Amino acid sequence: MEGKADVYPFAAIVGQDLMRKGLLLNLVNRKLGGILIRGEKGTAKSTAVRALADLMPELSVVNLPVHATEDRVVGTLDIEHAIREGEKKFEPGLLAKAHGHILYVDEINLLDDAIVDALLDAAAMGVNTVEREGVSYSHPSRFILIGTMNPEEGELRPQLLDRFALSVEVNGERDVESRMEVIRRRLAFEADPAEFRRRYESQQQELRERIERARQLIEQIKPSEELLKWTAAVGIRLKVDGHRSDIMLMKTAMAMAAFQGRTQIVADDMVEAAMMVMPHRMRKRPFEEGAYDHETIRELLGDLLSEVTHAS
Amino acid sequence: MEGKADVYPFAAIVGQDLMRKGLLLNLVNRKLGGILIRGEKGTAKSTAVRALADLMPELSVVNLPVHATEDRVVGTLDIEHAIREGEKKFEPGLLAKAHGHILYVDEINLLDDAIVDALLDAAAMGVNTVEREGVSYSHPSRFILIGTMNPEEGELRPQLLDRFALSVEVNGERDVESRMEVIRRRLAFEADPAEFRRRYESQQQELRERIERARQLIEQIKPSEELLKWTAAVGIRLKVDGHRSDIMLMKTAMAMAAFQGRTQIVADDMVEAAMMVMPHRMRKRPFEEGAYDHETIRELLGDLLSEVTHAS
Amino acid sequence: MEGKADVYPFAAIVGQDLMRKGLLLNLVNRKLGGILIRGEKGTAKSTAVRALADLMPELSVVNLPVHATEDRVVGTLDIEHAIREGEKKFEPGLLAKAHGHILYVDEINLLDDAIVDALLDAAAMGVNTVEREGVSYSHPSRFILIGTMNPEEGELRPQLLDRFALSVEVNGERDVESRMEVIRRRLAFEADPAEFRRRYESQQQELRERIERARQLIEQIKPSEELLKWTAAVGIRLKVDGHRSDIMLMKTAMAMAAFQGRTQIVADDMVEAAMMVMPHRMRKRPFEEGAYDHETIRELLGDLLSEVTHAS
Amino acid sequence: MEGKADVYPFAAIVGQDLMRKGLLLNLVNRKLGGILIRGEKGTAKSTAVRALADLMPELSVVNLPVHATEDRVVGTLDIEHAIREGEKKFEPGLLAKAHGHILYVDEINLLDDAIVDALLDAAAMGVNTVEREGVSYSHPSRFILIGTMNPEEGELRPQLLDRFALSVEVNGERDVESRMEVIRRRLAFEADPAEFRRRYESQQQELRERIERARQLIEQIKPSEELLKWTAAVGIRLKVDGHRSDIMLMKTAMAMAAFQGRTQIVADDMVEAAMMVMPHRMRKRPFEEGAYDHETIRELLGDLLSEVTHAS
Amino acid sequence: MEGKADVYPFAAIVGQDLMRKGLLLNLVNRKLGGILIRGEKGTAKSTAVRALADLMPELSVVNLPVHATEDRVVGTLDIEHAIREGEKKFEPGLLAKAHGHILYVDEINLLDDAIVDALLDAAAMGVNTVEREGVSYSHPSRFILIGTMNPEEGELRPQLLDRFALSVEVNGERDVESRMEVIRRRLAFEADPAEFRRRYESQQQELRERIERARQLIEQIKPSEELLKWTAAVGIRLKVDGHRSDIMLMKTAMAMAAFQGRTQIVADDMVEAAMMVMPHRMRKRPFEEGAYDHETIRELLGDLLSEVTHAS
Amino acid sequence: MEGKADVYPFAAIVGQDLMRKGLLLNLVNRKLGGILIRGEKGTAKSTAVRALADLMPELSVVNLPVHATEDRVVGTLDIEHAIREGEKKFEPGLLAKAHGHILYVDEINLLDDAIVDALLDAAAMGVNTVEREGVSYSHPSRFILIGTMNPEEGELRPQLLDRFALSVEVNGERDVESRMEVIRRRLAFEADPAEFRRRYESQQQELRERIERARQLIEQIKPSEELLKWTAAVGIRLKVDGHRSDIMLMKTAMAMAAFQGRTQIVADDMVEAAMMVMPHRMRKRPFEEGAYDHETIRELLGDLLSEVTHAS
Repeated sequence: MEGKADVYPFAAIVGQDLMRKGLLLNLVNRKLGGILIRGEKGTAKSTAVRALADLMPELSVVNLPVHATEDRVVGTLDIEHAIREGEKKFEPGLLAKAHGHILYVDEINLLDDAIVDALLDAAAMGVNTVEREGVSYSHPSRFILIGTMNPEEGELRPQLLDRFALSVEVNGERDVESRMEVIRRRLAFEADPAEFRRRYESQQQELRERIERARQLIEQIKPSEELLKWTAAVGIRLKVDGHRSDIMLMKTAMAMAAFQGRTQIVADDMVEAAMMVMPHRMRKRPFEEGAYDHETIRELLGDLLSEVTHAS
Repeated sequence: MEGKADVYPFAAIVGQDLMRKGLLLNLVNRKLGGILIRGEKGTAKSTAVRALADLMPELSVVNLPVHATEDRVVGTLDIEHAIREGEKKFEPGLLAKAHGHILYVDEINLLDDAIVDALLDAAAMGVNTVEREGVSYSHPSRFILIGTMNPEEGELRPQLLDRFALSVEVNGERDVESRMEVIRRRLAFEADPAEFRRRYESQQQELRERIERARQLIEQIKPSEELLKWTAAVGIRLKVDGHRSDIMLMKTAMAMAAFQGRTQIVADDMVEAAMMVMPHRMRKRPFEEGAYDHETIRELLGDLLSEVTHAS
Repeated sequence: MEGKADVYPFAAIVGQDLMRKGLLLNLVNRKLGGILIRGEKGTAKSTAVRALADLMPELSVVNLPVHATEDRVVGTLDIEHAIREGEKKFEPGLLAKAHGHILYVDEINLLDDAIVDALLDAAAMGVNTVEREGVSYSHPSRFILIGTMNPEEGELRPQLLDRFALSVEVNGERDVESRMEVIRRRLAFEADPAEFRRRYESQQQELRERIERARQLIEQIKPSEELLKWTAAVGIRLKVDGHRSDIMLMKTAMAMAAFQGRTQIVADDMVEAAMMVMPHRMRKRPFEEGAYDHETIRELLGDLLSEVTHAS
Repeated sequence: MEGKADVYPFAAIVGQDLMRKGLLLNLVNRKLGGILIRGEKGTAKSTAVRALADLMPELSVVNLPVHATEDRVVGTLDIEHAIREGEKKFEPGLLAKAHGHILYVDEINLLDDAIVDALLDAAAMGVNTVEREGVSYSHPSRFILIGTMNPEEGELRPQLLDRFALSVEVNGERDVESRMEVIRRRLAFEADPAEFRRRYESQQQELRERIERARQLIEQIKPSEELLKWTAAVGIRLKVDGHRSDIMLMKTAMAMAAFQGRTQIVADDMVEAAMMVMPHRMRKRPFEEGAYDHETIRELLGDLLSEVTHAS
Repeated sequence: MEGKADVYPFAAIVGQDLMRKGLLLNLVNRKLGGILIRGEKGTAKSTAVRALADLMPELSVVNLPVHATEDRVVGTLDIEHAIREGEKKFEPGLLAKAHGHILYVDEINLLDDAIVDALLDAAAMGVNTVEREGVSYSHPSRFILIGTMNPEEGELRPQLLDRFALSVEVNGERDVESRMEVIRRRLAFEADPAEFRRRYESQQQELRERIERARQLIEQIKPSEELLKWTAAVGIRLKVDGHRSDIMLMKTAMAMAAFQGRTQIVADDMVEAAMMVMPHRMRKRPFEEGAYDHETIRELLGDLLSEVTHAS
Repeated sequence: MEGKADVYPFAAIVGQDLMRKGLLLNLVNRKLGGILIRGEKGTAKSTAVRALADLMPELSVVNLPVHATEDRVVGTLDIEHAIREGEKKFEPGLLAKAHGHILYVDEINLLDDAIVDALLDAAAMGVNTVEREGVSYSHPSRFILIGTMNPEEGELRPQLLDRFALSVEVNGERDVESRMEVIRRRLAFEADPAEFRRRYESQQQELRERIERARQLIEQIKPSEELLKWTAAVGIRLKVDGHRSDIMLMKTAMAMAAFQGRTQIVADDMVEAAMMVMPHRMRKRPFEEGAYDHETIRELLGDLLSEVTHAS
């Protein structure tokens, strides 16, 4: 979207640990399944997404504007050309452009249903198919889906919510010192972006190397029977629909271990992964705000873990 | 939609017995009348449909996206060509492509009314007719209609509901061991699809042969007077509109018997068929959730069966 | 719509006496004014309409899909051609195609208002006029209008309701033996359509001849003063709007007598005709379900008949 | 619209005295201001309008369909031609076609607002102006506006209601002998239209001559001061908005006298005219059905007449 | 719009003093800011507007139909021409045509929002700017805006209401003699328009000269400090938003004095001006009909006047 | 928009101190982030914006009409040209035209969502990207965003509200002398714009020089730790979402100090800046009008300031 020289460095983001980790896990396993960032306005969600792409030289961010037309997203077929010349002529859309990169949707909860359909289809198949008047064209479309939303402006359809491997919440920092640091860094960055980026370059390089290492370690991880059992039990106990969450939970725990430099999944990886994978898949019971209380869920997960480990 | 090498094998699906049987009966009698799969998200409904087509080399799945335009579904006539050249030029749609194959509609309850009309017409006639400015074109369009829906996102119009021969409900497995097996198989499949498919090839072949045998047996089945009577009595007792259900019930029972390798329909075939044919045709009385209780219906069917057999 | 070899024979329809008679009367007097068939789904309304056309070799059924555009129904004028070549170029629509045939509208209660207007205009005039940018074209458009509807999906506008000469209600058979016969015949027809049609050919031929005879007899019928008086009294007593019902009632009674092989109208013809002509024209009073009770109307008609006959 | 040979003769219409007189007054003074016919369906309103045009060889009926587009009604300008050739090219619409004839709008209460605007403008100016992209074209458009409506399907906007000089209500005849005559005549007309028309030719000719005579007499009528005063008093007493009704009332009374063969307006002309001009302009007070009772109005008019005559 | 020979003369209008004065003030100062005429139908509002333009040979009336498209109002740019030929090609709309003339909007309260925007912009700037695809074109567009509306059909948006310098209410005359005169003049005009216009020619000429004289006198008027103070106090006391009303009130009083042949503003000019400028800008408090009572406002204005004069 | 000779001089605006200061601060730091002016109609908001641009010879005002299409705002790509000629052809929109200038949106609360999206994207990135059918084009788009709105016509979406650095309220002057001065100056300006502008030229020049000086001083300002702390504490105490307000508050205080000719920020700068930056970002609690009381906020800010200063 803009020259990378203008991008705020990922390593300079203050606080927001959960969001930063969720974003990085999607670099460790690029097929993990994306991340949904929920939170109030002004929390630099867009800045973080652009910073993530800036971290890896080979990645770019394709922005899907919330009011884009279906043609612009999936692309179109030039039928007249196809008929006249006897060969398909495809005018690629954003799903083609996003292949191998990050697809970013700000205010994803306001997205049109037809676009949501197209996104879901491509995300499910890894392929985007355009059909017009009997002619069809397919191309691969695998991307890291990152969505942001302000829950005060309406919820996401459960169908789409369920497609995100991870979901995290962000809020403004509530601690004076952190806020001062946010202001200091921002003023410094605005005053001289190039100098500011130079200051963080070694931390950026460190992060890059850690991710690359994790991408190799993850190949060697094999989940134990015990953790498989715990994963299945979590799905049942939390009354989450279907099996997709089980699979995503296990894959996230694997990425988490690898990011910590291990080939062994430990209990903490499982619980932390579950906290990003499960809550947005649980049903909210009407008039029961507490149904979504993260502390309760975390406790429940811990209890379950001891149960399963002791039982086996 | 994708290379078959990437498809999860039908024989490797864990659980979901009713859905699997309903899908297979539509292969035994391809004119049976399709199947509606109702259930929560994440239960691999799409995976199962693609696996079904993968099972039979000559079948493919045509996907009807829920926001497709009418032109894309029924096809169009190039009027200018027709007038200029004096011959009809038809640009085929999805209904042409689906002829002899499976037509798959995910979230069928969200389908536009005009498309529903076109589907109903083609399903009723086995023919799709396109008329534009005085020129018309018809082509055969017989397909196995498979719809999936999440009932939480709205019900299907009774008109369309009535067109499906069968309707089954799917839910996530509630048993830990099954869920573990789902995760194991999925991780194994994702790790190495080709190897995973090889592992299930003999079971796949067995299924194929059983279906072929059943397609021959079904020709020899003749329903007894007693079962005809029971069938008629069921329709009256359950207060189902019209006669379509009677005919579909009898045809399903015939396919069921053939799939079991018999040319004789037994009581169990009838009851099992009725459980897939009748419930979605019964009227829901407002504020009476129990009106749809499957156990009650099954009991009622059993009582009726003894009544009719004793009376005759 | 399809090859006639695939059509279920009219004579093989089980039950549904009123619907069958109403359809046949429209063959006896093709200017009678059409028929509206109201009833639940799955009662073979479409099958009966196609069977009716199949009965008379010179008749075909033109299907007006409920979501057809106005252009497709009334046809269009190629204005550029008209201006360039100096002669009108009309691209005919369904109303042109239906001239001299049956125009069939399934789910007619869901038809768009603009199409309803076009239908009413053509039905009233026997002429369809297309006007575009100062150029106009007219062609004759006389057809037998047959509509079907499920009253649970909304009522018909009174304006359109009033245009149908006849209206009948159909329901699934409620008697076990009839239902068994329906299943038997349908399975037999599906197993071997050609053989099944051969079995009913002589009954079909008989029906054809009876209709032809009736078409000649009707020319000789003259209504008595007494029956004219009764007809006028019926309209006043039942508080039906306007005079159209009087005229349609008399014409239906004449067709009824002719179909019975008589040139004399008898009391029963009048009452039977009135039962198809009047009820759908009576006002339903809100919250008075009984306002439409057929038995009460039939009694009222009988009383009136004695009154008028005695008085004269 | 159709060959005149098929038109039911005006003189053969049974009953409906007020509607027939209102229609004829518009022939006596063609600038009178049209007529609105309100009433239930099936009362041959369309038949009467076509019969009226058929009565005068030089008049035809232009039908404005309730769903016509604005372009079709007002006409369009071919801008490209205008620019290319330097001269205006107007493609006339229904308002051009209706000039010097009858413009007939069935179900006028359902007419689109943009069309109503165009109608009101033309009716007020006697001119139709089409403006497109800076080019404009005007042509005279004076016509007799006849609208029909069923008040059960919604009322007319007061703005449009006020433009009709006259408004009459029609209902089905409530007397048995009249209804019998309606049936007799209709059956006779349908059996042999040409013969039926011949039978009424002399009565038709008589009507034509009476109208021609009245068109000459009306030139010589001058309203007395007394009647002017009464007219002004009527408008005030009935609380009708504005002055248009006063002027229309006087013009209608003049046509009424001329149609009776007089050059003197008598009291009865005034009252009868007022009964067609005033009631539809009076405000209906909510929940006061009686506010519109014709008998009360007629009495009030009589009282006022004596008042004014005695006072002067 | 039509030949001026057909126009009813302004001097022959009976009654409606306020409307006539408001219209004439807009001729005295053509930048005054237009007038809104509110009132019941049939009060010859359109006739008066056309008569006003007819009074001044150099003025014409441009009619803005309530359903006109935005392109037709603001004009369009022929982009292809601009690109091909390298010069702008503007197709002027009604705002171009109205420059230097009267822009008349009947039923202005029903006008589309986009058109209202365009009107407001042009009225505020005296310039109309059309921008299409990066090309823009501006032309002067200063006009006398005259709107009419029937308040029973909905109110005007406050934004637009505030742009009219003046607002007056018209009603049908309630006095018999005046109404008789209205009828007499209208019948006379319709009988022979040319003769009727001749009869009023000298009165028309007198009016024209009075307006011209006033246009010269107005240049010499300077408001006193006292009247400036009263004007400011009126705005505060009546709680009218903003300052626009103050300025318009002063300008109207100046036109009023000039029209009376004076160069000195007197108290009566101020009160009369305020009665046309202020009431439509006051807030209506819900459920307080009296909040708009003109008598109360007039009294309040008088009191204020004495206050201010005595204080100074 | 118009010749500058017609523009009312900024220095001649009477009252409205807050609005005038907010506008000027955006000239001191052109990247400050715009200003939203809320207030009743007739308060010369548009006049002030045009006067602001007129003040600086290099600035112009681009007007974004509230009903502009998206193409007109963001520009379009001529795809055919791109394909034919192999090079991008961009037709710039208002966002291109506004680069380096003021973008003015009157009634911004009525703006279409798609346009709001485009505005937000450009404002966030400083870049406008147009993508059509696989071709994309970007250009810099940095502008001073000035919006005006009447809160009685609906609120602004919080998303957009949050993008404005500053928000001020304007009302009509409530003091007689000021109002008299407004009328005097306006009449003088309308009578002779050129002379009026000459009279204010030296004050205009003074303002210009003060702004230029402030633009240099701002480079030298460095916020103290104490004020950073206070800024962070304000955001937390007022419960404003995210961090954007902290950064904008600090930047506004810096501009405020520079405009006062200082390089040191004083407490008053902070409080005054906070009064323009914070209130529109605070949540309105339903039914609590007082939640927005400016006096309370000001007090709270003062208390906080002493707290922070004493603590450090």
